[in-house]
Amino acid sequence: MPSIDYAALVALLARILARHGYSASNAHVLAETMAMAERDAAHSHGAFRLEGYLDDASSGWAKADAVPRLLPSPAALILVDADNGHAQPAWRRGRDRLVARAGELGLAGMVIRNSHHLAALWPEVEDLAEAGLVGLNFRGTRPFLALPGGRAPLLGTNPWAFACPRAGQPPIVFDMASSAMARGDMLLAAREGRAVPEGAGLDAEGLPTTDPAAITGGGAQLPFGGVKGGLVALMVELLANALTGSLLALQDQSAEVAGAATANGGQLILAINPGASGGQGFAAQVEMLAAALEATGARMPGARRHAARARSLREGIPLEAERLAELHTLAGD
Amino acid sequence: MPSIDYAALVALLARILARHGYSASNAHVLAETMAMAERDAAHSHGAFRLEGYLDDASSGWAKADAVPRLLPSPAALILVDADNGHAQPAWRRGRDRLVARAGELGLAGMVIRNSHHLAALWPEVEDLAEAGLVGLNFRGTRPFLALPGGRAPLLGTNPWAFACPRAGQPPIVFDMASSAMARGDMLLAAREGRAVPEGAGLDAEGLPTTDPAAITGGGAQLPFGGVKGGLVALMVELLANALTGSLLALQDQSAEVAGAATANGGQLILAINPGASGGQGFAAQVEMLAAALEATGARMPGARRHAARARSLREGIPLEAERLAELHTLAGD
Repeated sequence: MPSIDYAALVALLARILARHGYSASNAHVLAETMAMAERDAAHSHGAFRLEGYLDDASSGWAKADAVPRLLPSPAALILVDADNGHAQPAWRRGRDRLVARAGELGLAGMVIRNSHHLAALWPEVEDLAEAGLVGLNFRGTRPFLALPGGRAPLLGTNPWAFACPRAGQPPIVFDMASSAMARGDMLLAAREGRAVPEGAGLDAEGLPTTDPAAITGGGAQLPFGGVKGGLVALMVELLANALTGSLLALQDQSAEVAGAATANGGQLILAINPGASGGQGFAAQVEMLAAALEATGARMPGARRHAARARSLREGIPLEAERLAELHTLAGD
Repeated sequence: MPSIDYAALVALLARILARHGYSASNAHVLAETMAMAERDAAHSHGAFRLEGYLDDASSGWAKADAVPRLLPSPAALILVDADNGHAQPAWRRGRDRLVARAGELGLAGMVIRNSHHLAALWPEVEDLAEAGLVGLNFRGTRPFLALPGGRAPLLGTNPWAFACPRAGQPPIVFDMASSAMARGDMLLAAREGRAVPEGAGLDAEGLPTTDPAAITGGGAQLPFGGVKGGLVALMVELLANALTGSLLALQDQSAEVAGAATANGGQLILAINPGASGGQGFAAQVEMLAAALEATGARMPGARRHAARARSLREGIPLEAERLAELHTLAGD
């Protein structure tokens, strides 16, 4: 398969976004977000999402030239209004302040309101881990998920992420949907006509199905892990939306706007300073735990993505020739 | 079944603990902890745990007259050294300060080190919800849990809890083990000779079993929800132990001390002020979500416990005559 440099992929995606209404700075941030996922072989959040960004903008649903702004807040909270744009520029707007506050106060959080999200959740917590902080990240989505025993999709698939820094190694990091399957993987399966595992969702009649098109076309996804996963989904809905003063999934109006690819919703990001909370022993404890788990053959979460990243940075990011040609067409080349 | 008043049960349990070495103030706090669980019909964390407290003290493993103390910390963290005692007195020591800091800063956390824990995790987050705060609570345990694909119990069953206040109603609150079954329920099943569901654990040879005695006697519990639940267990281990400067489950030495019922470990409690993060719309959003879910027949998590509480406060706490007689014997009556 042909490959493309990370920087070249960012530039190409940014040109496409800028050509479709995105401000230069938003185009750059969102292009980086997609290129980071491609670089890490996390394809369901990579260039696959480009059409969603274009549709969000062309439908007028999300604001392509949004300018996120900081709101007044107490010391341990950073409040950012995303101006009805995507959340990643809002994250960049407050990120340095969050890192500084967590360092100083031991713990700090960012609340993002009035925002859209089409990406993975690990980039934010990996930023925090690179700054030596432990990170948690909670995000709402469109209403796609029914609780076990129900059939109405009242909750989002409600992804969340965690990262913990390691000394001299990539962080321990995971990013999981509260649903049995991530929405991106469900959409990819529908696009490729692949069946999904039992328990992944219900059809429009509320009956179990393995057909992703039936689940995404009027049905509902189900949480991972039964009742407990449903509680996780409920918690993320409360933390990401209610607690941030944002709209709930069940208030989402995007289905009434042709092309809209996202909910206008919220996000909560927490950052903890392990030096303040755990003292000097923290790094050694993390290494002891990682070594014990790795000795049983387990891989630390995030390891496959970090290995793909190292490979991409060495050899370029694999990209099918046909897709690359499509991207150049979208860029007007 | 005969019943006992909440206050009378607290007094009886406190007399037993005080007679077995606990300081008056620790005895009262731990008696309240058990009585609250009995009051809520959460029996696996009720008076069932009394013998564990007595064994922890008589073995010399946990300090029955521990005096928790506040350590210097940055503003958004409250650090409490539990003095090798149980965590509940440490929680009480720092609770008001945590509530005040979360109110003032928007977000604050408590780190409890050098502590033991035999109780449920909802009391701490319900305290926070009563103060109008959203709470998260993460706790390590003894090494009981293997990750899927492994067989060595390197992690704790690692319970965690969440609570969100509601206007004029009991909070939305859950408390879940990262294991498929809570340790307390597993111990109750072993005591009563009941089989546990498939997927709950492995025997000493690493083979799946439904015999709780085989799981607790040399085997390992398994996480809920497969790989994702295993990630939750790993996260709780990092948050509750590594991040708090406490011992990991895999460093636990309690198996070498006859009678020891707990690990010396850590706990992390986070408190978020929804007024600061979400503004005035928070309470209405929570009610809208709860109403929509309740309209589908779902009960809010915690509702069954709160209903049992109301019944107990009205009619007394049901307690078998035989158990009541045992308690009086332990109290030296």
